[in-house]
Amino acid sequence: MPYTYDYPRPALTVDCVIFGLYEGSKLKVLLIERAHEPYMACWALPGGFVEMDEDLEQAALRELEEETGVKNVFIEQLYTFGAPGRDPRGRVISVAYYALVDLAEHPVRSASDASKVHWFEIDRLPELAFDHAQILQVAINRLRAKVRYQPIGFELLPEQFTLSQLQGLYETILGVPALNKRNFRARILKMGVLEEVGKQEGVAHRPAILYRFDKKRYEQLAKDRYDDLLKRGVDFEI
Amino acid sequence: MPYTYDYPRPALTVDCVIFGLYEGSKLKVLLIERAHEPYMACWALPGGFVEMDEDLEQAALRELEEETGVKNVFIEQLYTFGAPGRDPRGRVISVAYYALVDLAEHPVRSASDASKVHWFEIDRLPELAFDHAQILQVAINRLRAKVRYQPIGFELLPEQFTLSQLQGLYETILGVPALNKRNFRARILKMGVLEEVGKQEGVAHRPAILYRFDKKRYEQLAKDRYDDLLKRGVDFEI
Repeated sequence: MPYTYDYPRPALTVDCVIFGLYEGSKLKVLLIERAHEPYMACWALPGGFVEMDEDLEQAALRELEEETGVKNVFIEQLYTFGAPGRDPRGRVISVAYYALVDLAEHPVRSASDASKVHWFEIDRLPELAFDHAQILQVAINRLRAKVRYQPIGFELLPEQFTLSQLQGLYETILGVPALNKRNFRARILKMGVLEEVGKQEGVAHRPAILYRFDKKRYEQLAKDRYDDLLKRGVDFEI
Repeated sequence: MPYTYDYPRPALTVDCVIFGLYEGSKLKVLLIERAHEPYMACWALPGGFVEMDEDLEQAALRELEEETGVKNVFIEQLYTFGAPGRDPRGRVISVAYYALVDLAEHPVRSASDASKVHWFEIDRLPELAFDHAQILQVAINRLRAKVRYQPIGFELLPEQFTLSQLQGLYETILGVPALNKRNFRARILKMGVLEEVGKQEGVAHRPAILYRFDKKRYEQLAKDRYDDLLKRGVDFEI
């Protein structure tokens, strides 16, 4: 290293906010019970210290798998928390990541620094270690903001689904009892990313239309919209 | 410190992407010429190492003022960059912040680790140190995404302004030559946050309507929309 930097340095951690859903359940979050001090036996987000040679996202995925067994998830960076005093071990900066997964597809087991691991409903949480309650709240706000301006969560539905199933998913993520059905349908269909694939069969009620999410079409629309904006500015939306 | 952590630690920096505008100009970004190695005499984002007892945002504002003289700006956290190898001094994590300011209100002068400071048009940039070109691109994308779903930049206009002035501001931020006038007006008025305050006087052409941005109304609408969503789900928008 030709240029050295000799001042004191903070420690660096990563934390993971993994939201889990499956049909009919409330929105849940994956927590671990800490096996060591500080905050021993307290519930916390999975996470830990970053190694000197690994990328931040790689560190987050490694800690998540070590402590909970959860792997193969698509995580996104949420926010970096660095207030002095947020950790009794001294100055510790934490880069937080988040993801939304189908919890039925992610069996958990505790190991490493975690003595237990559990999916908690987000409105029935235990007390959390460090500033993890704040990190979780920022993640909930981000997830709910995101679902309002881009299609997410389709991978949590069967490949073919009804609009009622999709609406149920959105209600669960947003934590609201019942979105207005007519508005929801109009808005979601207007996005132009659902493809009709048939009708329900063998049901007692009037069969509902089945849709699939057209990911290619979604990506094309997003690209076209950007190109249009650059070329002609026709599709400006606020 | 009851719990010590003895592993190697990365160094921690903050970097600031300060976008500047004034009427008629292209979107600009504030850069400094580095006074020291590494990358001596190369242009870079203002920034530097975080002190052990200061908050991340406070560190960003301190470095910005030390190096450029710019102060009293509202910065937001952008993203944290931590790829191994991004800095020749060893492992350095950088938390990036960004802001959009009226550059006429922020005179600059170089000091500290900066030998020069200059506002560059974002499509006429010099080569940048470290991974700062990447950080800047992430900031441009974030700014342009943000302007599409919430009102920003009103503080860069006179208190009373025409829709043409507002459209010019948006075109500058988005880097597009001409948004569709009819669409832009319809969308912006539909937001319900502009208040008519009169008409232009003493102009040769047909006088345009003057508006002001109703910040209280905007905050109330955002709150109502959220309350509605929680209570009745009537206003769901994707």
